[in-house]
Amino acid sequence: MLNAAVKTWLDDHRQDHLDQLMELLRFPSIANVTDPDHCTPCAEWLAKHFQRLGFEAEILLGDGPPYVLAERVVNPAAPTVLLYGHYDVQPPEPLELWDSPPFEPVVKDGWLVARGANDDKGQLFAHVMAIDAWTAVAGSPPVNVKFLIEGEEEIGSPHIEPFLETHADRLAADALALSDTGFYDAAHPSITTALRGLCYFEINCTGPSHDLHSGLEGGLVANPATALARLIASLHDAAGRVTIPGFYDGVVQPAAEELRQWQDLGFDAHAHAAELGIDCLAAGEAGLDPLVRNWARPTLECNGIVGGYTGPGSKTIIPSRATAKISMRLVANQDPATIDAAFRAFVAEHTPAGITSEVTSLAHGRPVLLATDSPAARSGRDAMAEAFGSEPTLIRCGASVPIVESFQRHLGLDAVLLGLGLPEDRLHSPNEQFKLSQLYHGAVMSAAFLQNLRDRAS
Amino acid sequence: MLNAAVKTWLDDHRQDHLDQLMELLRFPSIANVTDPDHCTPCAEWLAKHFQRLGFEAEILLGDGPPYVLAERVVNPAAPTVLLYGHYDVQPPEPLELWDSPPFEPVVKDGWLVARGANDDKGQLFAHVMAIDAWTAVAGSPPVNVKFLIEGEEEIGSPHIEPFLETHADRLAADALALSDTGFYDAAHPSITTALRGLCYFEINCTGPSHDLHSGLEGGLVANPATALARLIASLHDAAGRVTIPGFYDGVVQPAAEELRQWQDLGFDAHAHAAELGIDCLAAGEAGLDPLVRNWARPTLECNGIVGGYTGPGSKTIIPSRATAKISMRLVANQDPATIDAAFRAFVAEHTPAGITSEVTSLAHGRPVLLATDSPAARSGRDAMAEAFGSEPTLIRCGASVPIVESFQRHLGLDAVLLGLGLPEDRLHSPNEQFKLSQLYHGAVMSAAFLQNLRDRAS
Repeated sequence: MLNAAVKTWLDDHRQDHLDQLMELLRFPSIANVTDPDHCTPCAEWLAKHFQRLGFEAEILLGDGPPYVLAERVVNPAAPTVLLYGHYDVQPPEPLELWDSPPFEPVVKDGWLVARGANDDKGQLFAHVMAIDAWTAVAGSPPVNVKFLIEGEEEIGSPHIEPFLETHADRLAADALALSDTGFYDAAHPSITTALRGLCYFEINCTGPSHDLHSGLEGGLVANPATALARLIASLHDAAGRVTIPGFYDGVVQPAAEELRQWQDLGFDAHAHAAELGIDCLAAGEAGLDPLVRNWARPTLECNGIVGGYTGPGSKTIIPSRATAKISMRLVANQDPATIDAAFRAFVAEHTPAGITSEVTSLAHGRPVLLATDSPAARSGRDAMAEAFGSEPTLIRCGASVPIVESFQRHLGLDAVLLGLGLPEDRLHSPNEQFKLSQLYHGAVMSAAFLQNLRDRAS
Repeated sequence: MLNAAVKTWLDDHRQDHLDQLMELLRFPSIANVTDPDHCTPCAEWLAKHFQRLGFEAEILLGDGPPYVLAERVVNPAAPTVLLYGHYDVQPPEPLELWDSPPFEPVVKDGWLVARGANDDKGQLFAHVMAIDAWTAVAGSPPVNVKFLIEGEEEIGSPHIEPFLETHADRLAADALALSDTGFYDAAHPSITTALRGLCYFEINCTGPSHDLHSGLEGGLVANPATALARLIASLHDAAGRVTIPGFYDGVVQPAAEELRQWQDLGFDAHAHAAELGIDCLAAGEAGLDPLVRNWARPTLECNGIVGGYTGPGSKTIIPSRATAKISMRLVANQDPATIDAAFRAFVAEHTPAGITSEVTSLAHGRPVLLATDSPAARSGRDAMAEAFGSEPTLIRCGASVPIVESFQRHLGLDAVLLGLGLPEDRLHSPNEQFKLSQLYHGAVMSAAFLQNLRDRAS
């Protein structure tokens, strides 16, 4: 159980913390490669705030907007936790769809409305509030704490890899926690335990040296658009499985505990399909539940295709060439390099006579599968249960969050994703919001998490 | 055998005829919808020329450039032949690739070089020369002759259908001949006996109401680009046959005589592939000769496809929609309306769950299969054999020439295609040319054709 005084202190300082967060939200720290300096005031506010909490804090300049690095060592023998967040936000446009100005935060029916209210200033601030409470009540947090807060997560953290490499020593820790994901829904506090990786390719199929008359050459010359269509078609079998040899090798099955928890979530496929304007969720491997297909299984998509004549009306040609973007979402333990080689071999084998094909690799990202029973995970699960009143569900995410994989690869940390968002938060959209109860209970969760980390280490 | 005096007269007047044709070639009568009047001088020259040959000739104005209609009735009991041609030419651009100005005809090594030298002023003029000879030697041609010469063939004869309908009485005839095709090669005088028809479709496959995140929805939501690729792939089997039920119903097999003649042509698949920048001619139904696949069998092509993200780099989406152009070249006796219905049924059946498909019909054209033993065909075959010294090969063309089908449908004529071009003629390209021997022997052929028509009728 969390130190009662810390809990009480948090309850008593909700308004102060809300006022501080609203200050932070007033900085229009829009992710922006062209003018990194415009984020400096926001980064400086954060650094000063950490200094007031007894942290050594500094601004580190790289090629992009400034990083805020803050550290408080309380006991060299105690565990160290690295807390990651980002102060940059999505552009607020279209402005006319906001009910109140995006950088003038307001509270409305228990929700805080502003750009960044959730993503990620609000979520990040729950941890800051916990530090504040521990420092006020006990003089310091129960473990050593480092914060790394960046300013370009919304544009894909283009400079984080060299930054992590350069500052590996200063970022060394026992555990990593970040709150930049969310609950499955308000009734299901959740911890995200897996993110999918990515392989992204472009395929070019080339036939004749120029577009040909489809009458004069039809029946003679192989058609690269047709060849590409057949290639794409051959990538799945009738049961929705990817046919690339070895594609599923090493794929880790979700644990029985996870599958049971996912079933209990009551995912409504019909409602989800209706939201997207379709009549059913028909993709993925036959016989598997939708959440399993989206969270725990790799998928392959044609993200785009173009070839030949695509204007209005008709033009009777055999195209000279056709191009497609093909990407795969990978799960543990698929390796992008192995998948890349297997895909290239598959394309070569499925390129028909009269056509040449060329594959370009555009992106590789490893899947992430986090421990659910490590010190960080157990500390996080217990803390969330205590703060929100029910055991969190171990969920996954079908998307890729490259930053998590980067931290794992460069720093090798025991990581836990303590996301506090709700599906109603309108991330990246007008009227972004964050439920105040998520903020307040999130601070309690963070405070308990730090205590649990200490208790487990002793 | 052609009247010897006519033959001699033609031989003696080669230079006069060449001078006349060069006059005709000097008109820059470029096919052009925006300014139909610019063709009037060329049409007037033709009408006056026919009047000098004893024809009643007039200019008929429709919605496009003027038609020239000329007629000489020599004997109401004799057969009437309608000779079709076009005075419009392709634009000459790129001008810098011409060795001499396109509308200043020159003779070079036995070839006449100018825009329109072959297509169609030169070919058309061979018939005019034959009329000239017969008129000079015998006072009139041996049969009743009508000429219809239009000025927008190169842009698809957009006004010919209503014209044929309106003037059906004036165009009535027993036979139709036109020279707007060509020999297989210089060693093979040829008569084209079939042209393919066309069905042209656009298919739209629609999935979710907007592009989706391929991670967050991958494994749930059916991908319309993939669905379209699978649909296109399913349109052919592994042996290259079109799989639409009933597609081959009624397809007429070429006659044994034709197949034998095609084999004798010695089509060089390797050389043809090399010209097009590919390593083999791999399309069409397995086990059939290339010329059979291109001339006598229906084909299906994807003329274009587009969907999802097609810009540089990667974008991880499941597209909302994908579109393809699909067309088929039809042979006798496939009916476009029947094929249309079968294709729509096929698409409906192959549209997977979660995707809606929509088919739009963009063009229908019937195939043409001409008689090879009719009075016109026999007269033409014998005339070509006499003029060029060897029996013409009965060839076909994989393309569609809608004008021929229009004449058949509206006027129901016994038609023969007496094309005089050679593969070296650079149709539609810079330095278009026409071999003078083809012109002179073509005039002999036309003179013999008219005589044969009379002799067969008597």
